[in-house]
Amino acid sequence: MTVAQYLARRLGELGVEHLFGVPGDFSLTLLDHMLAEGRQEWVGSPNELGAGYAADGYARTRGMAAMVTTFGVGELSAIDAVAGAYAENVPLVQITGAPPTTSAAAGRLLHHTLGDGDFGRFARAYAEVTAAGAVLTARDAAARIDDVLATAVRELRPVYLAVPVDVATALVPAPVGPLPITAADEHAVGRFRSAAADLLGGARSAVLVAGHLVERSGAVDRFARLVDAAASPVVTLVSARGAVDPGSPHFAGVYCGTIGAKRAILAVDTADVVIEAGTLMADAVTGMFSHRDDPAHTIHLGLHSATVAGSRIDGVPFATALDVLTELVDGAALRRDLPDTAPDGPEAGPELDQATLWANLESWFPHGHRLVTDIGTTFWGAAGITLPAGTDVVAQPVWSSIGYALPAAQMTVQELSTLARLPQPPVVIVVDNSGYTIERALQSPSAVYNDVAPWDWCALARAFAPGVPMVTAEPATPGELDEALAAVSCAPDSLAVLHVRTDPLDLPAGLRGLADNYHGR
Amino acid sequence: MTVAQYLARRLGELGVEHLFGVPGDFSLTLLDHMLAEGRQEWVGSPNELGAGYAADGYARTRGMAAMVTTFGVGELSAIDAVAGAYAENVPLVQITGAPPTTSAAAGRLLHHTLGDGDFGRFARAYAEVTAAGAVLTARDAAARIDDVLATAVRELRPVYLAVPVDVATALVPAPVGPLPITAADEHAVGRFRSAAADLLGGARSAVLVAGHLVERSGAVDRFARLVDAAASPVVTLVSARGAVDPGSPHFAGVYCGTIGAKRAILAVDTADVVIEAGTLMADAVTGMFSHRDDPAHTIHLGLHSATVAGSRIDGVPFATALDVLTELVDGAALRRDLPDTAPDGPEAGPELDQATLWANLESWFPHGHRLVTDIGTTFWGAAGITLPAGTDVVAQPVWSSIGYALPAAQMTVQELSTLARLPQPPVVIVVDNSGYTIERALQSPSAVYNDVAPWDWCALARAFAPGVPMVTAEPATPGELDEALAAVSCAPDSLAVLHVRTDPLDLPAGLRGLADNYHGR
Repeated sequence: MTVAQYLARRLGELGVEHLFGVPGDFSLTLLDHMLAEGRQEWVGSPNELGAGYAADGYARTRGMAAMVTTFGVGELSAIDAVAGAYAENVPLVQITGAPPTTSAAAGRLLHHTLGDGDFGRFARAYAEVTAAGAVLTARDAAARIDDVLATAVRELRPVYLAVPVDVATALVPAPVGPLPITAADEHAVGRFRSAAADLLGGARSAVLVAGHLVERSGAVDRFARLVDAAASPVVTLVSARGAVDPGSPHFAGVYCGTIGAKRAILAVDTADVVIEAGTLMADAVTGMFSHRDDPAHTIHLGLHSATVAGSRIDGVPFATALDVLTELVDGAALRRDLPDTAPDGPEAGPELDQATLWANLESWFPHGHRLVTDIGTTFWGAAGITLPAGTDVVAQPVWSSIGYALPAAQMTVQELSTLARLPQPPVVIVVDNSGYTIERALQSPSAVYNDVAPWDWCALARAFAPGVPMVTAEPATPGELDEALAAVSCAPDSLAVLHVRTDPLDLPAGLRGLADNYHGR
Repeated sequence: MTVAQYLARRLGELGVEHLFGVPGDFSLTLLDHMLAEGRQEWVGSPNELGAGYAADGYARTRGMAAMVTTFGVGELSAIDAVAGAYAENVPLVQITGAPPTTSAAAGRLLHHTLGDGDFGRFARAYAEVTAAGAVLTARDAAARIDDVLATAVRELRPVYLAVPVDVATALVPAPVGPLPITAADEHAVGRFRSAAADLLGGARSAVLVAGHLVERSGAVDRFARLVDAAASPVVTLVSARGAVDPGSPHFAGVYCGTIGAKRAILAVDTADVVIEAGTLMADAVTGMFSHRDDPAHTIHLGLHSATVAGSRIDGVPFATALDVLTELVDGAALRRDLPDTAPDGPEAGPELDQATLWANLESWFPHGHRLVTDIGTTFWGAAGITLPAGTDVVAQPVWSSIGYALPAAQMTVQELSTLARLPQPPVVIVVDNSGYTIERALQSPSAVYNDVAPWDWCALARAFAPGVPMVTAEPATPGELDEALAAVSCAPDSLAVLHVRTDPLDLPAGLRGLADNYHGR
């Protein structure tokens, strides 16, 4: 089979049934041969950044994604999305269709190069934002593909493959077994067990803090067993909302340092031992480092290491560590019930402001859906509401690239064209505060650079998909919002675009808290 | 003054009166202090890639441009545009607002990082696509700014400056003199003079080939003096249409190997000596290397080197080399008149196809305007028409990033929002062939990945700028095109969007020639 077919087959094994991207002359042969393998369907995007964000979203559900772009112009336009996948532990493969090997070796003056004969520049740039990468040669293409893909699976990070035109059609033997994933070194598990047992032995209470790796590594059920065994309160970070069923009797809310749910703060602050499962305690995720940072009483589980009372032990796989803790925790000794706390979600008022908007969305949000928020006010509005069990929340609290939320933000608006034509199109709620309110909250509330030009979002959606049925509305009052949401619920097969205008300085509670912490108030 | 003010002042010296970009929290302080200096006005874009392309276009006229983005998410979204500036010899400064120096040194888990404490990743990625760069420190910020900016001026390439939040407000002495630009080593000029004299001495005819560096280095007048002195035919590459007044008696047309103007081919093929002034003989620019490649009879002038009869001499400044040749050429000996050749522009027919479209645009194109084309069919359609003197043609024939032509292409469609609000908005002619016809021409004419979703371009323009007066039309016949162009001419202060549909396989003559050469036909 050809190298392109080999790659398509390996991706198929990993659950990849779609290829995202934009074509270019150096990727056409590669695409033709990959698609001929019949394992993937093509999903073209208007530009590569949008394709990269789409691949990221896909990988969060499927466990892996792949995108194909052309050399230079294509791949560089997607590099921000791939960096985001790195920051957020999302495994995907950025595949570049590259010029022929002989052209690269001769340093020919080809288009899509810098005109200086150096064909390695973009692969080197990608090395800064990926966990592994290769410019394939006919000699060892299959082995390099396997290595690079295995790294993506093992490290939950994006990887890079450049496939020169001639290598795409070079012949390799078909794979004889599944992709070999090297197991991490597990010799350290015993040391982890012993250290964790010591810390838990003297504890009378614990709290479990779910981080993004719980979902990303497919450990939601395993983590739930640990929660049940510990019979202890569990909180999720804003980066891990889908890690715990909010209907669980142990669930104490979303923890974000001092700006999260009061019950979550209570659960964390009063525990003898804090078990951080797959967390990354970054600035925004912790309300500007306002979380309980208490290494002496903390067990932290990373993807391939664990840290107990400040001592890091490498070579401890995340899943194994969860199982070890499940054995160690003594539910009888740790069990506790938190006292009742007042609810702290947003409250609806007579105006359609941020609080009313999110209170309404909390009531309306349908079961079994995915919520995608951009990193501005919508992320912080969503952080303050309770969602139905099974809701998958997708956002980028670490990388924080505005425009990520495919259907919504201004920077990737042309993706409305793609979304309108999906079999299950999303509900897009544009919260239009005339610019970058998250930046107005942090600094420069009236600076000219935080304003954006006004757009007619509903008309845009119709112009990006002429003739495609859709629901559009511009609700200006709570009553109109109710009506619009009802109309949306009646048309589940249509794209819906609701354009809601809010005041430029109207902040969701979470964002107000974040800004206060940022300013040290 | 602050480092930010210092930078703004130096940029002002270089003619930079606008800052392109998108704000982010790490760039707000920098922006506030730069704008306070009063030398530049802010031009916000919907996304960074669009801002980068805008800066590139600005630098081609002004000689320098600057854009300001935030760390990670912002700068990486613009890297494709900066790489394009490198490939096309466009000097601009990508300025990144970076996290505080102390956060970087401590490797804190900040948003917009990869969460691994390595703050140097994006600067290293940028090193692959820029001629110089620095992450500024308070210790030597002014000197580094001067070094980096001087490199941009000297090399006509983009450069990179990361300004940490704390460094932006650090104090430095105001500059005491103009930016010191180190002169290139000129010791080699004598050797060049002697080698060129030898080659020209035995010649009875010459041809001048204008490359992109003629315009980019500001040498249009100097080059015209050489043309007059030589009294010889002059051709321009497709990358250098503005380098020669098409009304000049010596002008023999656009040369693009076998697919350019017949008169240009004749001029080049019959000359004893070919003088290539600031050319980069890349694949598309030469009709897939179909040009006369004849080192023994060629004098090639680069930015800082010259090559005579195959021998490269470093340290010869472009402007100096032009002056030396102007002294050496003997118009009396070289003067020749080419025989008449048949015109080879597009001919209008009864249908509104590519040929008719370009024939009409050739008649209509107003004096003193800039023509921006994307790299697909429009570039090749424009390559085949004669333009009025003084027309500035902007395109990316080397980097070839679709979406570059700000007002037009799908990938950067949101820039319609910016363009509609300009004091002198452009005329946008969308040549809609339902996808990537340039790729259909080269390979895979019916592949699904070459199709794009249909958009209502006129409605999009109105939705991106609600309430802003504009002219929109969808001409479907030559008569309707005439009417639309007349309406456009009557409304010079309004954005105009003409949506012209052509057949997916209808190729301008230049593109057909390129495809033939690509396939070796």
